[in-house]
Amino acid sequence: MPSKRGVLLLSGGLDSTTLLALVSSEGYAVHALSFDYGQRHSAELSAARKIARRYGVVQHVVAKIDLRVFGGSALTADIPVPKNRELDDRDSVIPVTYVPARNTIFLSYALALAEVVEAGEIFIGVNALDYSGYPDCRPEFIAAFERMANLATRAGVEAKDTPAIRIRTPLIDLSKRRIIELGLRLGVDYSMTTSCYDPGAEGEACGLCDACQLRLRGFGEAGAHDPAVYAAQPSAAASETQ
Amino acid sequence: MPSKRGVLLLSGGLDSTTLLALVSSEGYAVHALSFDYGQRHSAELSAARKIARRYGVVQHVVAKIDLRVFGGSALTADIPVPKNRELDDRDSVIPVTYVPARNTIFLSYALALAEVVEAGEIFIGVNALDYSGYPDCRPEFIAAFERMANLATRAGVEAKDTPAIRIRTPLIDLSKRRIIELGLRLGVDYSMTTSCYDPGAEGEACGLCDACQLRLRGFGEAGAHDPAVYAAQPSAAASETQ
Repeated sequence: MPSKRGVLLLSGGLDSTTLLALVSSEGYAVHALSFDYGQRHSAELSAARKIARRYGVVQHVVAKIDLRVFGGSALTADIPVPKNRELDDRDSVIPVTYVPARNTIFLSYALALAEVVEAGEIFIGVNALDYSGYPDCRPEFIAAFERMANLATRAGVEAKDTPAIRIRTPLIDLSKRRIIELGLRLGVDYSMTTSCYDPGAEGEACGLCDACQLRLRGFGEAGAHDPAVYAAQPSAAASETQ
Repeated sequence: MPSKRGVLLLSGGLDSTTLLALVSSEGYAVHALSFDYGQRHSAELSAARKIARRYGVVQHVVAKIDLRVFGGSALTADIPVPKNRELDDRDSVIPVTYVPARNTIFLSYALALAEVVEAGEIFIGVNALDYSGYPDCRPEFIAAFERMANLATRAGVEAKDTPAIRIRTPLIDLSKRRIIELGLRLGVDYSMTTSCYDPGAEGEACGLCDACQLRLRGFGEAGAHDPAVYAAQPSAAASETQ
């Protein structure tokens, strides 16, 4: 059994799948954690299940939680997902696709799971460069969460001096291009991953939302083909930065 | 409409009910938040619903979450609830009734709700004196959570200098006796509240678990009668400290 044990938040998207490939290649025993949180689409969850199997995780926990009870986001409520926005305009405002306190809630569940399985590390594929203006993707948030986590838990209390729980964010400083390049070196099959905020009935990506635009630009900059299936013709979005 | 708006974690127990009475008396518009988290018993939730109505909260959100997916606690898994422990032995170990990362998860949901309803304060009835050895009831945990919360949220990011979200714990330094005395002054009907970790089929308290013992000792020290219905004869536990 590997000596290193980690909990990994797995959405089924490009970032968390690349993270899983990286962490697996480093010999961790991985407890993957996904959420059924009233997403508009279930394509994400079925992708997460396939990817967890592909990487032979020790355990894949799918926690059902209901963020819709709070409303407040285009990803969980009846607010239109913005399309065809200029990517460079994104940083000026926090977008309507922001889910209130989402990463805080996700990391709290990961903390509970880490405590039960006695994992010392929690991996989350947040990204500060391409974070679309979400406050809970920034390094200072992650550091504050880690500090809180070590005061919240039995392991943290018993460890006293050194942190018993580390929140690991290996992708936080990487551009989408670098993440894709890393994943391709690790042999990630990106056709398994889904990124779109508003996929069609067959799971095809829209090609127009922020997530699709970021993904397409990343593949374009990496000089690689995105194997995802798109409903819209993505060439306009992809060629913006070329 | 009151100018002050707060989210309050309402379990239906003695502490959170006293807290609701206090916060209501101070003129807050209260958004109460309770959890259906796979408790062994639902007496708590029905008490919370009655108490929320009694105090005329603006909104009572019951969020269904499944902590059982993680196991690891006598309150959510098949581990016996300890009975008849010496109360003074409690501080030496974290008890098996500790739910992994529970207050972290509960406060994370409260943060999401606060963000959506634009409440600047979150009230939680944690208590550092009678906390039964739970790490997530200590003031240093609360302070770390507040700091994290202000980095996690839209409101926190936009406020920059002053905290946009405060975590309020008015009961944290009070003994159970003082909490009960405060509640009685505020006219709390403690027959509505439930504290027991292991109630009977009719909701009657066991009188023997840590929570019952703490409650009975508190009423004893306050010189007041506990109107809760007990299955076991509680006089032995109540008279311990008299």
